[in-house]
Amino acid sequence: MPDTSSPQTAAPEAAAYEPTERTVPTRSRERAAYDHEMVHAILDEAYVCHLGFVRDGAPVVLPTLFGRVGDRLYVHGSTGSRPLREAGRTDPGLPVCLTVTHVDGLVLARSAFHHSVNYRSVVVHGIARTVTDREERRMALDAIVDHVVPGRSADSRPADEKELAATAVIRLDLREVSAKLRTGGPNDEARDLALPHWAGVVPLARGYAEPLPADDLDPAIAVPDYVTAL
Amino acid sequence: MPDTSSPQTAAPEAAAYEPTERTVPTRSRERAAYDHEMVHAILDEAYVCHLGFVRDGAPVVLPTLFGRVGDRLYVHGSTGSRPLREAGRTDPGLPVCLTVTHVDGLVLARSAFHHSVNYRSVVVHGIARTVTDREERRMALDAIVDHVVPGRSADSRPADEKELAATAVIRLDLREVSAKLRTGGPNDEARDLALPHWAGVVPLARGYAEPLPADDLDPAIAVPDYVTAL
Repeated sequence: MPDTSSPQTAAPEAAAYEPTERTVPTRSRERAAYDHEMVHAILDEAYVCHLGFVRDGAPVVLPTLFGRVGDRLYVHGSTGSRPLREAGRTDPGLPVCLTVTHVDGLVLARSAFHHSVNYRSVVVHGIARTVTDREERRMALDAIVDHVVPGRSADSRPADEKELAATAVIRLDLREVSAKLRTGGPNDEARDLALPHWAGVVPLARGYAEPLPADDLDPAIAVPDYVTAL
Repeated sequence: MPDTSSPQTAAPEAAAYEPTERTVPTRSRERAAYDHEMVHAILDEAYVCHLGFVRDGAPVVLPTLFGRVGDRLYVHGSTGSRPLREAGRTDPGLPVCLTVTHVDGLVLARSAFHHSVNYRSVVVHGIARTVTDREERRMALDAIVDHVVPGRSADSRPADEKELAATAVIRLDLREVSAKLRTGGPNDEARDLALPHWAGVVPLARGYAEPLPADDLDPAIAVPDYVTAL
């Protein structure tokens, strides 16, 4: 593992994660960003992350919910699930790569070669460790629920002892992390500008439809404000 | 590697990928699906995949564009990019895991424990190989452009010799692959149904905004039908 400095060592005027060999892209370096605010915002907007780990020498990438508390990411799952079992079995933990991506637009250039998408992604490298502290486990589970719908954990029944025992929580610290972004229009070659093909960006956006109450919901219970706020 | 049968050996009435030890989930097996039609539909709807590979013993997960031609997936990139370089250097290729995920809804249960999201995902395990055949490379690049906007490759300037030389293409065959889906409302415990918390699903949908023409686009060139069709 490359040596990674603590985020606290970054310049105070713009707190940023220290780049490492793994977080400096080989290409399009101008698209990389390390500041806390941007990294956190990209993470917080994502409903799922893609968690990569190595099993029997081969890579595995699974989508999963996650939560963030400051510079800590939490992932939960059944105590029987593969990565969570392995994080608990391995010392000091399980090497993982956690990635989130938002596609913000389709970029159509005159040339096939310059087609692209506008996107914002965050890639986190590190060691995932099983969380055993009871209070940290509770906080992590709340964070995962609140990551899906901010404010929801306070308006639901907390996990009981049996549910807590069935749930494994792993933690990944934000240390070796970078964001990568592409924005703007197509970058066509000067010689292609007169070609007759349309060029531009088709912006994408997330849409929320009307909330669907559960079949067995008491009709007297209204859609809460924190849901309407989405 | 587990032995994987060819898709052609599946029952003809519903062509399906053969499950393997890696593609049978340890949990929620009822959510897994293997039929070609569903796997292809989930892949085709995704703008980016998350490609996992192992580098220096640690997992790396990167978002990337891709294309599909039948049972072959193609990923392209600069000849200098890490996974593409490694796929060309390793014999017989680079072990990868390629995953796509759509989040279709937020599932709010009365209990924190049963919160979830409705989703559709596909996970592909296999060996990515560098494509060297000239015609297959051209076809793959067209497929990647048409994956972003169907019909677009025919309405753009094809890659020239220099661009082709700068582009590496890798291929991953759909053999060891599974889909996983969650649909429907929350699965609350019977004892929680009388709790005063709202429960249900907030559906999510992809939205397209008005296409933005490139700054230097000839105003006489209209938005093409294949873009409006999105």
